Amino acid sequence: MATDQGRSGQHGVVAADPGAGDDCLFCRIVAGQAPAYVVLDDPDVVAFLDVRPLFAGHTLVVPRTHVDVLADLPRHLLAPYFATVQRLSGAMESVLGAGGSFVAVNNRISQSQPHLHTHVVPRNRKDGLRGFFWPRTRYAEGEAEAVAARLRAGLEPLR
Amino acid sequence: MATDQGRSGQHGVVAADPGAGDDCLFCRIVAGQAPAYVVLDDPDVVAFLDVRPLFAGHTLVVPRTHVDVLADLPRHLLAPYFATVQRLSGAMESVLGAGGSFVAVNNRISQSQPHLHTHVVPRNRKDGLRGFFWPRTRYAEGEAEAVAARLRAGLEPLR
Repeated sequence: MATDQGRSGQHGVVAADPGAGDDCLFCRIVAGQAPAYVVLDDPDVVAFLDVRPLFAGHTLVVPRTHVDVLADLPRHLLAPYFATVQRLSGAMESVLGAGGSFVAVNNRISQSQPHLHTHVVPRNRKDGLRGFFWPRTRYAEGEAEAVAARLRAGLEPLR
Repeated sequence: MATDQGRSGQHGVVAADPGAGDDCLFCRIVAGQAPAYVVLDDPDVVAFLDVRPLFAGHTLVVPRTHVDVLADLPRHLLAPYFATVQRLSGAMESVLGAGGSFVAVNNRISQSQPHLHTHVVPRNRKDGLRGFFWPRTRYAEGEAEAVAARLRAGLEPLR
């Protein structure tokens, strides 16, 4: 059985419930209440196949706790969450025989489900997945320096 | 001054030196030996602007220690490395006023420099960065179940 996680109903605003719960498809998958091809089920992290993969084996890694985006992930979950992403990225090569992997998070924009998920996708040369990093642009004179200065000054301290 | 980190010379095989050293442009940037618009310079992690950005503020986050790909990142660096990625992804909104962010790692395939780097890119609605997650495909009957089973069975234990 597979879920249509890219297409299902929108996630409503759930003010009182930090777990987001019934409105969130990925919370339902994590809770075993919605079907998915689960690849890994750890105390803090669950990974399952994207049902509309870029390539076979395309996996989504989600924290069991509901957070909307990467910036909201509690600090104590950074290591376990990204350890799982790391394991999956290695497995694309060691298990599936891919030449490499693509690891990506869409935060808010282009994010199909508002529960943090990292895509881990097997990649191979000439696999047709090109162009997604284009078109690139160029900075005008002085622009890069100004943007870097804004980021440096505005970066919030570690939480 | 800016580096052309996407275009410069290839990184040679450096067997004896775990730091990779002079052949690696990102190691030179980390060491302050090559120019870059540095956004953040922490004990374990350095972040600097991509000189050919998708959008202004497009930042690359690299571990100070040379590793080729995400799978090679030592476990003790997972939290500090991704804490920085997380901070930058938040800063795309809080500092640059973006609507969201795109966070991505190319491992081996489409990887312009063989020193692990995470792209953190500001995103906005209708910004033109579409299509990079297409075309999607569909699993044939039984295929998803088989792929998930292979990944489950083959995943290496946590290091």
